[in-house]
Amino acid sequence: MPGYSEKLKKIFEKNKIDIGSKIRITTSSRTYEGILMPRTEGKDDIIVIKLKNGYNFGIKYDESIKIEKIEDALKKQEKKLQLKFDKNKPTVYILHTGGTIASKVDYRTGGVEASFGPEDLIEMFPEINDYANIKSKLIRRMFSEDMRFEHHQIMAREIAKVSKECDGIIITHGTDTLHYTSASLAFMLGNIGIPVILVGSQRSSDRPSTDAAMNLICAVKFIVKTNFAGVGVCMHATSNDDYCYINHPCKVRKMHTSRRDAFQPINADPIAKVWFKEDKIEFIRKDYDKKDKNRKIDLKDGYEDKVALVKFYPGFDEKILEFYEKQNYKGIVLEGYGLGQIPINEIDEFTKHNKNNFNILKRMAEKGCIIAATSQTIFGRVNLNVYSTGRDMQSIGIIGCEDMHPETAFVKLKWLLGNFKPEQVKELLVKNLRGEITE
Amino acid sequence: MPGYSEKLKKIFEKNKIDIGSKIRITTSSRTYEGILMPRTEGKDDIIVIKLKNGYNFGIKYDESIKIEKIEDALKKQEKKLQLKFDKNKPTVYILHTGGTIASKVDYRTGGVEASFGPEDLIEMFPEINDYANIKSKLIRRMFSEDMRFEHHQIMAREIAKVSKECDGIIITHGTDTLHYTSASLAFMLGNIGIPVILVGSQRSSDRPSTDAAMNLICAVKFIVKTNFAGVGVCMHATSNDDYCYINHPCKVRKMHTSRRDAFQPINADPIAKVWFKEDKIEFIRKDYDKKDKNRKIDLKDGYEDKVALVKFYPGFDEKILEFYEKQNYKGIVLEGYGLGQIPINEIDEFTKHNKNNFNILKRMAEKGCIIAATSQTIFGRVNLNVYSTGRDMQSIGIIGCEDMHPETAFVKLKWLLGNFKPEQVKELLVKNLRGEITE
Repeated sequence: MPGYSEKLKKIFEKNKIDIGSKIRITTSSRTYEGILMPRTEGKDDIIVIKLKNGYNFGIKYDESIKIEKIEDALKKQEKKLQLKFDKNKPTVYILHTGGTIASKVDYRTGGVEASFGPEDLIEMFPEINDYANIKSKLIRRMFSEDMRFEHHQIMAREIAKVSKECDGIIITHGTDTLHYTSASLAFMLGNIGIPVILVGSQRSSDRPSTDAAMNLICAVKFIVKTNFAGVGVCMHATSNDDYCYINHPCKVRKMHTSRRDAFQPINADPIAKVWFKEDKIEFIRKDYDKKDKNRKIDLKDGYEDKVALVKFYPGFDEKILEFYEKQNYKGIVLEGYGLGQIPINEIDEFTKHNKNNFNILKRMAEKGCIIAATSQTIFGRVNLNVYSTGRDMQSIGIIGCEDMHPETAFVKLKWLLGNFKPEQVKELLVKNLRGEITE
Repeated sequence: MPGYSEKLKKIFEKNKIDIGSKIRITTSSRTYEGILMPRTEGKDDIIVIKLKNGYNFGIKYDESIKIEKIEDALKKQEKKLQLKFDKNKPTVYILHTGGTIASKVDYRTGGVEASFGPEDLIEMFPEINDYANIKSKLIRRMFSEDMRFEHHQIMAREIAKVSKECDGIIITHGTDTLHYTSASLAFMLGNIGIPVILVGSQRSSDRPSTDAAMNLICAVKFIVKTNFAGVGVCMHATSNDDYCYINHPCKVRKMHTSRRDAFQPINADPIAKVWFKEDKIEFIRKDYDKKDKNRKIDLKDGYEDKVALVKFYPGFDEKILEFYEKQNYKGIVLEGYGLGQIPINEIDEFTKHNKNNFNILKRMAEKGCIIAATSQTIFGRVNLNVYSTGRDMQSIGIIGCEDMHPETAFVKLKWLLGNFKPEQVKELLVKNLRGEITE
């Protein structure tokens, strides 16, 4: 009964309720039915059940609530699938970091903490075994919103390690920060000679509308059937189950809270389309790296902690920039407006604060902080030459980030400052290293 | 010679160059030709010329540069258009705040600071006079990135004042923060009985590809020919010169740095389409307020200064939230991930920082700060019930902002805290007041 209060544990025990049991909860106003879930975080007096529609739902316990068992939890399947290695098939390594993609595993048996073995994966998604021998490893089991660059580093090192034992790697990942991770891995894994495809799922595997299977299967097909090398993101291209996009790791962004085609290309075409039910893969771009298993990865997995992405909005308080100055930040990515400008002009008594933004950034730049300009429009290219504001920004050394969207510019600056000298950083920031800048 | 250094003034004088003169600048490597522009901001030793393509361009002066006059500035047109009031036509009031839309005014005569009279506007855009009597007023001449809520307040008061003298109002505005202003005005101008249409331009009026005329003319047509009341945004719907969208003031966002159709609807249909060359207006939505000149504006133009929009990214430093806590912020709009979640879970040694985010926000909420959750996906609806992270956020009082995108949620919270009591704010934040929340 992990995570539940002593009181609730006693009630569950009395009613012979286990994790995975189907239960009915009756409050004064409503009745809920669902599978009892383990409680891994948060308050221990909230009962979490998985509803029929696949969503988890939490109900705060109080004395007036009635809890009944409707069905026992299923017995754990003891006999595991026997996997055979087929030397005629390529080998794909699946590294799991968390997220909804593999969340089907054994709710009814209470086995959410089950090991992430290749057998479990093939039981969930049998088709992947048709294309490849599957190896797998559980790296973390976390929501992607909790991921930090420390975790990108762990992934990059693990990829470098297992890359010798396989023909391609899949990273299963929560979708929320998947595009930050894909950019980060693209920078960390220089010269990689095999494909590394990030796969997430917007609807968990136990919901009828899940996109988990199609995204994973398309990723395996893409790895096995093409000569692509490098990092990519494989997710639904449309809201139908027709084909996935392989998007560029630095030119993609989660653009919807819930749609299955949330990952859309930004300022660049997707690399390829991979059909789900047909044996069809179409490359939209030709400028990708080709597979070469003999290439040695140039692993540069450093990153600088003191880099911030600072979004502007009307009434932005200059004290926010002062905070970063006092904290000795080494890099600032401004998420400005339009062509990249931020409020720095003094027009009237109200805009003297805007002028202070300029003064503070000037001081920071003089102390060596790298300041980069991007646009909150997300789409389009920054241009600091058009308006006087942009030219004034350039006069203190602020660098326009071309057509990198804010998140990619942020990841790049963090990575550059962790691996190169300050003089090099300025030059490399506006140089296309991984396809992050479209010429 | 406003804004230029004494040295440059002497050189210009010697060569009989005025603002508006066509000049040639020869550096060691290149030759530039263009109209000499006044220098209103920034360093005084940079010569700004308007190139043939309409872009302004700055060249730092040094001794090696050669400056010649090619053509005199045009003489100022002294004789102004004589306007006649036509009592059969409605009256449209144009309030100018700045931006590229009216930037054509008299570069060649040096008259960039010319008064923004109805005659100037009608000279630039003669068609608007076919539809309406034009009145106008210059409120400010500023880049929209410099606008603060103080300026929204000035606009709202001016609108309330002139609303009695006209049938509709147009606000000409820089595009960079136009969507913040439109949301702000929608909230400030309760119960308004006439249309208030914001119009910007992505390409200035002196460029062949300008969108200024079409956007302004479509706005005038929409005001004159329909029964719409309330705030709207009139900009190109596509990159062709075919029709404009009238977008909802709270459901629109600048989504491209430079395209003319940068303003796209977010999580809602546009209100209407207005064709440029045809006499055709089509309402896409029917749920708009109808004109009623007798209605009294409920002007609520307060706003709270201490509200921040805080965007998350991997590695987000908990000290940033501590800063807002120390500064006694009254409202925080979190720009989180996916369905609205932010990093608050402790998974391993690295994510203890994430856990601190939770602790700091909990303390802030306990002290009365209103904390609201939005998503950096921009599109889609926030839902804090799906994952345990969201439920934990709710447990400390964090409020999910439904389908408001971050900028609209930020403007709304700032406005609510400036006009209502804290208890009311929580309730009103998730209540649809102006069409900002789609049911």
